[in-house]
Amino acid sequence: MANSLNALVEGLRRLPGVGVKSASRMAYHLLQRDREGAELLSRALHEAVVNVRHCTRCHTFTEAEVCSTCTDVQRDASRLCVIETPADQSAVERTAAYKGLYFVLMGKLSPLDGVGPRDIGLDKLFARATDGVVEEVILATSFTAEGEATAHVIGEALRARGLKVTRLARGLPVGSELEYVDLGTIAHALVERR
Amino acid sequence: MANSLNALVEGLRRLPGVGVKSASRMAYHLLQRDREGAELLSRALHEAVVNVRHCTRCHTFTEAEVCSTCTDVQRDASRLCVIETPADQSAVERTAAYKGLYFVLMGKLSPLDGVGPRDIGLDKLFARATDGVVEEVILATSFTAEGEATAHVIGEALRARGLKVTRLARGLPVGSELEYVDLGTIAHALVERR
Repeated sequence: MANSLNALVEGLRRLPGVGVKSASRMAYHLLQRDREGAELLSRALHEAVVNVRHCTRCHTFTEAEVCSTCTDVQRDASRLCVIETPADQSAVERTAAYKGLYFVLMGKLSPLDGVGPRDIGLDKLFARATDGVVEEVILATSFTAEGEATAHVIGEALRARGLKVTRLARGLPVGSELEYVDLGTIAHALVERR
Repeated sequence: MANSLNALVEGLRRLPGVGVKSASRMAYHLLQRDREGAELLSRALHEAVVNVRHCTRCHTFTEAEVCSTCTDVQRDASRLCVIETPADQSAVERTAAYKGLYFVLMGKLSPLDGVGPRDIGLDKLFARATDGVVEEVILATSFTAEGEATAHVIGEALRARGLKVTRLARGLPVGSELEYVDLGTIAHALVERR
């Protein structure tokens, strides 16, 4: 096989969830049907690596020193929502139910995958949350084992620093029918009934 | 979201089978954990677009005018195996049961997807097969509806040009148990018994 083609297949395998068969299929597709797309992706990758960095305040991806959310003076700086990824942040933003600021962990604690407190920037988060302006930290990590563990570690540390720490409510999703909801969720919804 | 990040997500969506959620996940992964991989993939894409072209004889991907298989004088130039993709070619090569040459369609006839005879280079194949050296053309397209239709069209055209045309044998896979083989395959194996 051509060397450049081999190198392309190897390059595509660096993408998460892409094995050698998918990578070959992608390479053939780009070279056979979408060379323009390949050049576009090549430039986009390089531009992103050069331009995208982390916001010094909330740790999300941005091209500026501080991201547009953190510099928005309309926002309530007394509340800080801790989330795992930029995708989670846009989900919360789309609800239009939150006007505070964010801290993006860019991951969650996952000792088995070698992701420790430093990898998700917990030292930065603790410094950020204790700036004297933040009054409440809302933990919005996933409700998975790793997300819960991450929330627990952050919650303990911030409560010890005298901050008010809350967690997103657990309960039944909007539009759900009891019959089809898992028992753990129903049990939580019962215990946390209001 | 950062502009370069948006552009990267759009770029990754050009890959087959990648939607906006997978593209975001890939972009976050590369920027967060594998910037070196992103640069590597960027260069590999550009290099491949610049260097990889089609072999003028067999139509496969190559960096030279004619690919290394076509220039191999050890091979039997009187037989030409028609296959759909370079991946299929390497499967046939790995069997070590074939020493002839190849023609790679880079696809198969698929009118519903707008893939016609010209897109899979049938005019090139007909010119190649009637070079006076080729005696037998072996049709090794897939045993799917589209692969069979492609084989049928090529077979008819080449037989009309006086060439011997054969098709890979249909039958039971090695290691298979009758009980678990589909009925169409068993029927073909009965009819084509030897």
